[in-house]
Amino acid sequence: MRIGELSRRTGVPVPTIKFYVREGLLPAGELTSPNQATYGDGHERRLRLIRSMLGVGGLSLARIAEILAVVDDTSQPVFELMGEVAGTVAAPRPAGSGEPSARARAEVAALGERRGWHVPAGHPDGEALARTLTEAERLGHEGFAVTLDAYAQAAERVAEADLSYVRGLGARDDVLEGVVIGMMLGDAVFGSLRRIAQAEEAGRVYGRGRRGDEE
Amino acid sequence: MRIGELSRRTGVPVPTIKFYVREGLLPAGELTSPNQATYGDGHERRLRLIRSMLGVGGLSLARIAEILAVVDDTSQPVFELMGEVAGTVAAPRPAGSGEPSARARAEVAALGERRGWHVPAGHPDGEALARTLTEAERLGHEGFAVTLDAYAQAAERVAEADLSYVRGLGARDDVLEGVVIGMMLGDAVFGSLRRIAQAEEAGRVYGRGRRGDEE
Repeated sequence: MRIGELSRRTGVPVPTIKFYVREGLLPAGELTSPNQATYGDGHERRLRLIRSMLGVGGLSLARIAEILAVVDDTSQPVFELMGEVAGTVAAPRPAGSGEPSARARAEVAALGERRGWHVPAGHPDGEALARTLTEAERLGHEGFAVTLDAYAQAAERVAEADLSYVRGLGARDDVLEGVVIGMMLGDAVFGSLRRIAQAEEAGRVYGRGRRGDEE
Repeated sequence: MRIGELSRRTGVPVPTIKFYVREGLLPAGELTSPNQATYGDGHERRLRLIRSMLGVGGLSLARIAEILAVVDDTSQPVFELMGEVAGTVAAPRPAGSGEPSARARAEVAALGERRGWHVPAGHPDGEALARTLTEAERLGHEGFAVTLDAYAQAAERVAEADLSYVRGLGARDDVLEGVVIGMMLGDAVFGSLRRIAQAEEAGRVYGRGRRGDEE
């Protein structure tokens, strides 16, 4: 297809598409004459992914360029790339700044032991978790850490489903794109479900019928 | 304690404390003389909660005022307030704008049926979920919805742990504060754990040992 058609299909203006090509985010079209290039389904798909990373993912163009470079790197095994892509797409949200407390770090290490996880000192996700627990402590809710094992089991369940989904995609490019999308959308999916499940559980615990508002 | 001591303990400047009092976020201190007020542990705790909602929670002062008004409202049963507080603290993050597709809405409704959840048409969390699924569709990953049941089971596990935690707090104020904190910090905790669990699961699925980097 021509660039105008690509623009029409994706809703991305032509100058923006040209900008993404210049920035190396989108491969150039195939030249059919000195002034004319043609674009394929791969371009359309990549363009939608870029827009989604900008919008839903809230990622910067520089971050997107890094991620796409990893996705397009065929020299490394897919397993290595998955970790890199997942870590870059969904960098832990800051929750509490400053150093985690020794207590919070010890809790994270103990949780890792109990689950058989490899979370060495300085692991970025382990540190982010310790900072969140430190914030809970600071608020007088150090007891919130009792929920960690249940949260960890739930995280394992979600990770199994994620991996099973991306594995089923088969082709290498699709797998990595699946990781990007799963990391971006998975937190939003879980956030919505968590709120629904809490309302259900609160209704149960506090003695209200599951279909409370039909009473 | 005097306002200077409250400021020192919490790291919040005196003028900021006075501003919170004027805005009604923090109760005024008890007057011990016409020009002198004294503050208690309750003030310190409330002040930390306000700062955490501003920082970690990323909430506006107006939103915080709403939440605290609910927390302080003793005229309603705690169950009613919990839902209100939870919904206000953790409004679903936008993932994909515009109308959800009919297909996505049907998937959310079917999930609700399967789980025995009450998610009527127009339910804000149900709509947010449908918008996220619509974004997945737009990216050619409508199949991502196969993960929904696993995510939902995980969400139920987390919700049980959350409720069990806040119930254990006993006193009404503590329960509602626990809901605020759990909603704010719980998503961050789960996000970190999800990434750790994914790395573990990827290591397992792709044939790398659980302690891969010790190989």
